[in-house]
Amino acid sequence: MLFSRGLSRISRNLRGSLNGCRRFPSGRGQNHPLILSNTCQSPGNSSEKVFRSFLFSNGLPSLHSASHQFHNQSSSIIEDQLDPFSLVADELSLLANRLRAMVVAEVPKLASAAEYFFKMGVEGKRFRPTIILLMSTALHVQIPNPSPSNELESILTTELRSRQRCIAEITEMIHVASLLHDDVLDDADTRRGIGSLNFVMGNKLAVLAGDFLLSRACVALASLKNTEVVSLLATVVEHLVTGETMQMSTTSDQRCSMEYYMQKTYYKTASLISNSCKAIALLGGHAAEVAMLAFDYGKNLGLAFQLMDDVLDFTGTSTSLGKGSLSDIRNGIVTAPMLFAMEEFPDLRVVIEGGFDNPANVDLALDYLGKSRGIQRTRELAIKHANLAAAAIDSLPESNDEEVKRSRRALIDLTQRVISRTK
Amino acid sequence: MLFSRGLSRISRNLRGSLNGCRRFPSGRGQNHPLILSNTCQSPGNSSEKVFRSFLFSNGLPSLHSASHQFHNQSSSIIEDQLDPFSLVADELSLLANRLRAMVVAEVPKLASAAEYFFKMGVEGKRFRPTIILLMSTALHVQIPNPSPSNELESILTTELRSRQRCIAEITEMIHVASLLHDDVLDDADTRRGIGSLNFVMGNKLAVLAGDFLLSRACVALASLKNTEVVSLLATVVEHLVTGETMQMSTTSDQRCSMEYYMQKTYYKTASLISNSCKAIALLGGHAAEVAMLAFDYGKNLGLAFQLMDDVLDFTGTSTSLGKGSLSDIRNGIVTAPMLFAMEEFPDLRVVIEGGFDNPANVDLALDYLGKSRGIQRTRELAIKHANLAAAAIDSLPESNDEEVKRSRRALIDLTQRVISRTK
Repeated sequence: MLFSRGLSRISRNLRGSLNGCRRFPSGRGQNHPLILSNTCQSPGNSSEKVFRSFLFSNGLPSLHSASHQFHNQSSSIIEDQLDPFSLVADELSLLANRLRAMVVAEVPKLASAAEYFFKMGVEGKRFRPTIILLMSTALHVQIPNPSPSNELESILTTELRSRQRCIAEITEMIHVASLLHDDVLDDADTRRGIGSLNFVMGNKLAVLAGDFLLSRACVALASLKNTEVVSLLATVVEHLVTGETMQMSTTSDQRCSMEYYMQKTYYKTASLISNSCKAIALLGGHAAEVAMLAFDYGKNLGLAFQLMDDVLDFTGTSTSLGKGSLSDIRNGIVTAPMLFAMEEFPDLRVVIEGGFDNPANVDLALDYLGKSRGIQRTRELAIKHANLAAAAIDSLPESNDEEVKRSRRALIDLTQRVISRTK
Repeated sequence: MLFSRGLSRISRNLRGSLNGCRRFPSGRGQNHPLILSNTCQSPGNSSEKVFRSFLFSNGLPSLHSASHQFHNQSSSIIEDQLDPFSLVADELSLLANRLRAMVVAEVPKLASAAEYFFKMGVEGKRFRPTIILLMSTALHVQIPNPSPSNELESILTTELRSRQRCIAEITEMIHVASLLHDDVLDDADTRRGIGSLNFVMGNKLAVLAGDFLLSRACVALASLKNTEVVSLLATVVEHLVTGETMQMSTTSDQRCSMEYYMQKTYYKTASLISNSCKAIALLGGHAAEVAMLAFDYGKNLGLAFQLMDDVLDFTGTSTSLGKGSLSDIRNGIVTAPMLFAMEEFPDLRVVIEGGFDNPANVDLALDYLGKSRGIQRTRELAIKHANLAAAAIDSLPESNDEEVKRSRRALIDLTQRVISRTK
């Protein structure tokens, strides 16, 4: 299963001050009610930028969406409050400890394999847990008729938070399990800056450690005693597998279909975060409409992320991408920029069908891409989905709770960080 | 994960007439209250016997256990009623269709990979589903105060049966998932008489198909809306992984420890069937004591099976074993016969520690085994566990229902078939 270039990279890239707009306008508004004008700047080639510099590029377009008029200019104090990662930093730290405790296994070798990516320094930036914890707060509602003392309310809130935290842990376990199997499938030798588990401990142990994490995730899920949530996250595993298989085995028509690409992208990248967000709403006892908005946020954020990732695979450099750029096309994976380019230049299809084992074919495809609006349209589509994600948060039932409002702003911040990243 | 030489072979081997005792006595009774005397015959070398002959060897010892005085001689009519597999043949056939329907996937390649071992002719003999369906009937209780019409009772019974049937399907999916990953880990090229999935469709698809089956099993589990059952079967997956890892990575002391071997055998072979049996009891709303007896039955049957399998790996032939005999020792896996032999001949440990890459070492170890009572003591231990499994069934709350009694007899039959098989 799994998606090779995970969402986890984003959090590493997205920390730091946020300049520019809160909601990016796109230039392809005809079919997208949320897209206003084509003023979003390309992040450009960021080869000179230092990996992990945690800074966004400046010069981003001004805010066009009327619903988020707050904090249009960088303000260190307010921005600090909004930083999505620092809002949940304490809980993320607890989560790291809990994850390490959860994967303790009877057999030392299995334990060390399972905790390989939960160890200090290589646990990734926990992008998914951050979203899930923020979503938990964003959906928090005061109990309307609290007991005479506030004790019961406090107990219920704590209990709910602990269950939602468990979803964050489960999501991270499923994600890492998928990374482990993915690296076996791709024969990858590095991950998160260290040797991949398959490279260090062999394919067998990587497959077993992935299975182990999945079974631990399932045991943890069962402990939540909510079968709808179990079903939701089991379906995610199925989606990860389906997405990976869709990518592995395509017909020529499928490879050249934007619809197929978007479906695969949902399965491989967006399903885990969208369904985890929905699970948070279900555990909170929210109405179906709220659960759907939580789902929509995760889905659109995931899609926006992947679309930008696909852009950066072309525009970035191996340093800023964390792996060789052009890695998709070199692995024969056709992504949105090339699919859009093909709409303008149908002859590109013949080049794509010729495969990319021959470097000359790669160069030819890149020529077509350069002449086309493929990169730009992909970025616009990413902006569309980022806006849809933000719109889902805007549509949540109103709340006067300051913490709730702050978490919602942080979730919207994330949508913008996703599309303004340059690496 | 998974156990290479699955329990599934047993049902293929165990069909046919049953001669001899219902409860086998063992010669090592000191520590085992159920073991009476050492009269059980070795099945001997069965190389001349035709694969799938479905016949047991004759000359088995007469019945010593007082609790099962029925049908001591082969009687075609009564035996037919008792044949465990024909008792549930109709349901097994439905189950095969349902399994094929359950693994339909959006991506054709994934669907064909997932259903590879559910196709007609290669679906195995469904040993586990047989036990689970028999256990479902064996635990059936009449509702004490039925409604004025019998309609409600009938609806409840049908509903329960359908949920229990779902456990049979889930168990089979987990089992096949484990086989798929196992074959990848072992680089196996055949399974069930055809090319292994990894051999035919590649390692990637085999890993993905295994993950897919696990996720479908989890979705099906969630649909039962019983989180204790979800937890039970998720733990099984963890056990399969743990057992496989225990086998892969052992210290010298662990390899030479009978306790370690039995623990690994429980994880790899007995956990799935014991926990499935327990799940059947939980779904049926039985008391903890009954659930424990169901668990004990599965656990001891699984252990007896594996111990006999380990014997047959030495005494059988490649034809009767379905794969090359001596496969364990050739793969460096030390099993019960060798562990018992080592108790008699401590020098054998040095040979074992020397590894079995050198054929001379294999021959030397076999010499020690031949001189020892290793094979006999392993068979005795298998008999002990078979008897414990039968005793668990005997300890179930009494029932006057003929169907219940017949299923219980069939479950006891299975314990005997497990230890009397010769291939």
